Amino acid sequence: MATAVANGGAAATTRVMSVYSEVQTSRLNHNLPLPSVLRGPFALLDGPPSSAAGNPAEIANLFPHLFAQPSANLAPATSPSATPTPTHSLKVGVVLSGGQAPGGHNVISGIFDYLQDKAPGSTVYGFKGGPAGIMKCKYVQLTPDFVYPFRNQGGFDMICSGRDKIETPQQFKEAEDTAVKLDLDGLVVIGGDDSNTNACLLAEYFRSKNIKTRVIGCPKTIDGDLKCKEVPASFGFDTACKIYSEMIGNVMVDARSTGKYYHFVRLMGRAASHITLECALQTHPNIAIIGEEVAAKKQTLKNVTDYITDIICKRAELGYNYGVILIPEGLIDFIPEVQTLIAELNEILAHDVVDEAGVWKQKLQPQCQQLFEFLPQAIQEQLLLERDPHGNVQVAKIETEKMLISMVETELEKRKAEGKYAGHFKGQSHFFGYEGRCGMPTNFDANYCYALGYAAGALLHCGKTGLISSVGNLCAPVEEWTVGGTALTSLMDVERRHGKFKPVIKKAMVELDGAPFKKFASMRDEWAIKNRYISPGPIQFMGPGANDVNHTLLLELGAVQA
Amino acid sequence: MATAVANGGAAATTRVMSVYSEVQTSRLNHNLPLPSVLRGPFALLDGPPSSAAGNPAEIANLFPHLFAQPSANLAPATSPSATPTPTHSLKVGVVLSGGQAPGGHNVISGIFDYLQDKAPGSTVYGFKGGPAGIMKCKYVQLTPDFVYPFRNQGGFDMICSGRDKIETPQQFKEAEDTAVKLDLDGLVVIGGDDSNTNACLLAEYFRSKNIKTRVIGCPKTIDGDLKCKEVPASFGFDTACKIYSEMIGNVMVDARSTGKYYHFVRLMGRAASHITLECALQTHPNIAIIGEEVAAKKQTLKNVTDYITDIICKRAELGYNYGVILIPEGLIDFIPEVQTLIAELNEILAHDVVDEAGVWKQKLQPQCQQLFEFLPQAIQEQLLLERDPHGNVQVAKIETEKMLISMVETELEKRKAEGKYAGHFKGQSHFFGYEGRCGMPTNFDANYCYALGYAAGALLHCGKTGLISSVGNLCAPVEEWTVGGTALTSLMDVERRHGKFKPVIKKAMVELDGAPFKKFASMRDEWAIKNRYISPGPIQFMGPGANDVNHTLLLELGAVQA
Repeated sequence: MATAVANGGAAATTRVMSVYSEVQTSRLNHNLPLPSVLRGPFALLDGPPSSAAGNPAEIANLFPHLFAQPSANLAPATSPSATPTPTHSLKVGVVLSGGQAPGGHNVISGIFDYLQDKAPGSTVYGFKGGPAGIMKCKYVQLTPDFVYPFRNQGGFDMICSGRDKIETPQQFKEAEDTAVKLDLDGLVVIGGDDSNTNACLLAEYFRSKNIKTRVIGCPKTIDGDLKCKEVPASFGFDTACKIYSEMIGNVMVDARSTGKYYHFVRLMGRAASHITLECALQTHPNIAIIGEEVAAKKQTLKNVTDYITDIICKRAELGYNYGVILIPEGLIDFIPEVQTLIAELNEILAHDVVDEAGVWKQKLQPQCQQLFEFLPQAIQEQLLLERDPHGNVQVAKIETEKMLISMVETELEKRKAEGKYAGHFKGQSHFFGYEGRCGMPTNFDANYCYALGYAAGALLHCGKTGLISSVGNLCAPVEEWTVGGTALTSLMDVERRHGKFKPVIKKAMVELDGAPFKKFASMRDEWAIKNRYISPGPIQFMGPGANDVNHTLLLELGAVQA
Repeated sequence: MATAVANGGAAATTRVMSVYSEVQTSRLNHNLPLPSVLRGPFALLDGPPSSAAGNPAEIANLFPHLFAQPSANLAPATSPSATPTPTHSLKVGVVLSGGQAPGGHNVISGIFDYLQDKAPGSTVYGFKGGPAGIMKCKYVQLTPDFVYPFRNQGGFDMICSGRDKIETPQQFKEAEDTAVKLDLDGLVVIGGDDSNTNACLLAEYFRSKNIKTRVIGCPKTIDGDLKCKEVPASFGFDTACKIYSEMIGNVMVDARSTGKYYHFVRLMGRAASHITLECALQTHPNIAIIGEEVAAKKQTLKNVTDYITDIICKRAELGYNYGVILIPEGLIDFIPEVQTLIAELNEILAHDVVDEAGVWKQKLQPQCQQLFEFLPQAIQEQLLLERDPHGNVQVAKIETEKMLISMVETELEKRKAEGKYAGHFKGQSHFFGYEGRCGMPTNFDANYCYALGYAAGALLHCGKTGLISSVGNLCAPVEEWTVGGTALTSLMDVERRHGKFKPVIKKAMVELDGAPFKKFASMRDEWAIKNRYISPGPIQFMGPGANDVNHTLLLELGAVQA
């Protein structure tokens, strides 16, 4: 059933001697297709000068050397001279930043292979443990044997990741020291919105100091909230959603088979509800709560509870005392009144003692007090007891799915007493999160990541900096994918923090007038009452379904009518 | 991405108009191979008279008509007359009993196809909602259109299941009325140990009343605890374990990538720890607790906590502050002291008031009091508050994985204070259960179930009763599988309940001297300290890994050296 993987050289400490499953082994040896423009000689064509997503004047101030630089696209070379000369070898560093996302290893493989193929003699350094690895100059030199065991495999364990940021002048200096010490021509930063902002700051810094090191970003996050016209998807989203949808589909069939449980499924993804929306489109749950809609409609927790309870009551009348409900991890971040309550609690708990008798509650504003009393006791306790090192409420630790089960239960009991509900309700809670961050990448993510990495290599080889690797036309076959680099400054706006302008790449939230949400909104009433469950099944690497593109991408790229 | 499934006739209410995923559709149209003995003309060869698993005299008393009947095996027919005559059509009922297990629909498809193929003109009734459907004569008549949408699909929703039992004389009479009313030649009961015991009682009852209805059982349970020499596996175990192992493998890669979490994974399966053992063999966790071993060694909760804590400390010294730990759902059922505590709590809570000050605790025996104080507060509260309708503690609701995290945390803090531990510990809890009961069956379960159902049809066609459908040689290609029926009385022993002997099929527990446990025991010390994680990946229906047999079966059937 399992075969030993060839020892990947002494450096490959994490996976050396590992025994791989058959599926892992087959993925290891799976050849990845490349967009056709990356296969032959290519030319890099600059577009027009770029601007910013907002406040261009401030962005220009913050990025004097990079602002307005053009994005670029690869095109088949009309003459061989257009391609970077093959003799021009490079020294390139690569770093993984932030949370895991399926496909990270393939980005690194893509960079590595580009340089092996097109710039022989090049060196690739993997910085260990995220940006801290750059600052501390902790790295491993990548070799074919070292990279091989990670091809098409999930996880970030080839070089691991980290959440440190390069922020202070001292930290920029440390990064500079590393770049100079290793004589780096380029650095690829694989990360989310913050990490790519950081990548751009580093590109600007190196340019301002006349250091030759160029910096290219790659869009990573399972949350799907780093995207725009030029960068239609962040990698990992596809795989994570398909893993969650497999489980949701299974739970749906279970719900329908037993007929007695309501499954409340909380899904990873705090800032935006893309994962919940995509999983809903894949599986057709009875209810899916989209945080952005809750925020736009300024809904209260009571509104959300009532919405769920109303559907449960309607289903009970139809004889269905079961169902599946999807909830985004970040739900309570989207509810204004909860934010107010948490802010007040943080304030009170910082200064006062929480007495058993509850006298402290009188310090809450009446509305907050009312909301607090509305919450189930277990959640009240979580709010009071689960504090981070700064003494603040740890919102991420609140088990929203259990909270909603409890609140729905209370509301149903009330309605039962009033003779308005005669069904029976049993809630089952689930949290799908860690299972999805490190799965083996789908064919889509495997191909997309490999192309992103290969493109990053090409951009560096052409001397570009401050761009994010951009692969487009993703609903077409891989051969037809477009490849280029988008000016990171063109994705930026500024936010005012501590009296200063800070550059940010705005998180892409679920657009309520976007095609994916509109599709969902047009179907949810039917899903609520009729059971239209779909079971996507386990991710396949061969055969039917193996090359499916996710709904969000299909709808956003307009390949499907909404 | 999804295609509409042909309307399966008005009766197929549950899946009519459903939209299927690509994988679901492809499975729908996937042809199932049959053991070669079922493909051509066959003869049914009776073996020698059978006995019982224990107390044959009592079993003979309880089953006067069926005791000692031979098991039977199918063999290729030497003359055409050996096979049941094709003109002999049958009326057969089928019922799903107990919890969901992947493959149930294929058992029904197998029965249906056997009768269509070999006994044209036959009728199949599906009893709805489990044994209650028999008693209330609630059924649906199966047609090709009705059965089609469920082929190779997960769930029990074709006719649903139930947990009622046919126990009282009145209930047996109701079953008789249904059998007579529908003129049933046969009934197939698809269920676990209890349901198959019940099937045998029903077979005995019908025989004693000279009713023609014969009863055949089929071995179903994801828990894997219904098996013996003749019935080497219960269906659903393979799929459920592979679904859980996919998730465990993903979490392992996540653990290794982030390097900062200990994942405590509770796995479904209360009575026996087969699922935990199989998942351990598939994924190589740092720790897996096997309930049967805990019971055999009479371990306390403190022993289990210390075992885990010791390994965590050792790993911290090696620089690993992460890991994956598997825990069987039924762990606390295996710990004698916890059983005692729960018994005392049930007694006290039935008669006394639980005062806030804790005076009630003095009613506990000193050892129980000590254990109670040792438990984390949240678990103490669960023990006191989560009661079933009879007022008893609901053991299944206790979140053992969170309990262990909390107890390990406390122990680690103690050791840290003593200077014996310098690592950092963060626990993440998971429960994998409902996700695995209704997944699409693996190729193994799909084939196995289809053969079980087809064999059940053959056994009924040959006039057999009181047998459990038995398919063997399961590590060989499907063509070579053996097919027969095992006398249910031969699997039985008696238990003394309420002063009477009750027949039982003993649950097959993890054997500590069996090959699977010995294999695990021989490797766990290495897995504990070194990281030998395997990521089985998602279940594949085509390509590498698609036809893997699970470790438990391979080891038990001796196909692999331990």
